[in-house]
Amino acid sequence: MKLPKQVKMVEVGPRDGLQNEEQPISVETRIALVDKLSASGLSVIEAGSFVSPKWVPQMAASEEVLAGIQRKDGVIYSALTPNLKGYERALEAKADEVAVFGAASEAFTQKNINCSIAESLERFRPLVEKAKQDAIPVRGYVSCVLGCPYEGDIDPAKVAEVSAALLEMGCYEISLGDTIGVGTPEAAKRMLEQVMARVPVEKLAVHFHDTYGQALANIYAALQMGVAVVDSAVAGLGGCPYARGASGNVASEDVLYMLNGLGIETGVDLQLLAEAGNFISEQLRRETNSRVAKALVPC
Amino acid sequence: MKLPKQVKMVEVGPRDGLQNEEQPISVETRIALVDKLSASGLSVIEAGSFVSPKWVPQMAASEEVLAGIQRKDGVIYSALTPNLKGYERALEAKADEVAVFGAASEAFTQKNINCSIAESLERFRPLVEKAKQDAIPVRGYVSCVLGCPYEGDIDPAKVAEVSAALLEMGCYEISLGDTIGVGTPEAAKRMLEQVMARVPVEKLAVHFHDTYGQALANIYAALQMGVAVVDSAVAGLGGCPYARGASGNVASEDVLYMLNGLGIETGVDLQLLAEAGNFISEQLRRETNSRVAKALVPC
Repeated sequence: MKLPKQVKMVEVGPRDGLQNEEQPISVETRIALVDKLSASGLSVIEAGSFVSPKWVPQMAASEEVLAGIQRKDGVIYSALTPNLKGYERALEAKADEVAVFGAASEAFTQKNINCSIAESLERFRPLVEKAKQDAIPVRGYVSCVLGCPYEGDIDPAKVAEVSAALLEMGCYEISLGDTIGVGTPEAAKRMLEQVMARVPVEKLAVHFHDTYGQALANIYAALQMGVAVVDSAVAGLGGCPYARGASGNVASEDVLYMLNGLGIETGVDLQLLAEAGNFISEQLRRETNSRVAKALVPC
Repeated sequence: MKLPKQVKMVEVGPRDGLQNEEQPISVETRIALVDKLSASGLSVIEAGSFVSPKWVPQMAASEEVLAGIQRKDGVIYSALTPNLKGYERALEAKADEVAVFGAASEAFTQKNINCSIAESLERFRPLVEKAKQDAIPVRGYVSCVLGCPYEGDIDPAKVAEVSAALLEMGCYEISLGDTIGVGTPEAAKRMLEQVMARVPVEKLAVHFHDTYGQALANIYAALQMGVAVVDSAVAGLGGCPYARGASGNVASEDVLYMLNGLGIETGVDLQLLAEAGNFISEQLRRETNSRVAKALVPC
């Protein structure tokens, strides 16, 4: 139960955070956000998504975002790519890395993309093959790892199976997502135990939503299991913008505060990260979801 | 590292939660809150404080609160008592239990009550002696256990020393408070290790504020150390009401959600607890600080 000495923070705010916003955010603002995030020392930033703008208008013009940012040495700018067509667009836009989005829930997969989990994985195969040829790393997301809005509890064996399939297909990293934020620390550990029996822990990331306030406790549990890659979104962007106060991704500022307190290196500066969060919160005319960001404002 | 099977939740909302409100809350509302909390299954509720209303007008008429509530069998209604005079008032008002409030920080103690820690402990002694004669249990709070607004870091040895002194004086339970919410899980563990060398873990409670969002992770760490008493405030009441979003005590709903997920028994019903939180949030015309309460509102 030794905690990792270093953690790679994967910032998903510009993609997972903004993709559900009621009003699409301007390309200019998205570019400014990515640049402020890279200035904070983050080394991986999910900058956009190459899905059809018909389905996710918020992520339209991700090409322009990737073209407009000031690329910082050593920073990986990644993009979500649902299929080969999206992958080709991401490659054209010079994404350093791409990601595919699977799920551990059959019901969620059916509702979301109208096919079985097995079929969804097969759809990723040509994308991953092509990325291999292009030497573009592919990240695999597994959503609903601790619960599904349709199925309820999810069998950790199913999470392990999907994770192993993505790894075998060629994904270099598997991000385990508690999409609806229902997980608690011991459930997270039981899930991770089964996944780690099939996927080396070095290849695992955790991706918690803070809907029920459990994300940091779950991340702490995952760190205790040796996980050293943590996804988060600055200002806790994401979630359901229609609900009064439904929170989204765990806030990057809150994750970093904990990692700092645990003596874990990240290379990220809390003050600069909080400034990026304050910037996007102002743009969205919304209070930040980060408790740290709120606390840093003098009383 | 086995988690406890049962946890005693100590509800501090009506006292620690409301004592900093800008506008004092009516006696009627305070009574209704306490009754809703007891209806949820909570077994210990800090119902008021017998300090001078000159200093804490929010807690004036705590006698009327204790006189007006519907006492439920098996529920302990406690009150904070700074000195013998306050204790006599609490006894008169039929508080089942009282609490004294110390600190592990010399600077905090000086600023707060204008004496040294040693002097502050001596002031409690006649109160504790009298309570022993009356067979009234006394709880001891130790504040600033993970940081002080004036001193910064606090030596865990100092926390252990103050805790041991309160135990030796006759306190039956010591509640360790991260008053300014700056702690992180490993710091909490290091502090608890030193305290547990001098106070049996069965006599310890943890009391975390969620200012930096760390409270649940810290509670999880404390549970791993065997701590089985957790303080919290419904709706996350407390903190600094003047700050834009400074959060107060960890929300009872969020604690209970985690304990439920960990399979730990509490005897508390989440839905009824959330209703108590929604009630007081409406009275305060303020959004709840409980993420669980927000999430329970349908999207």
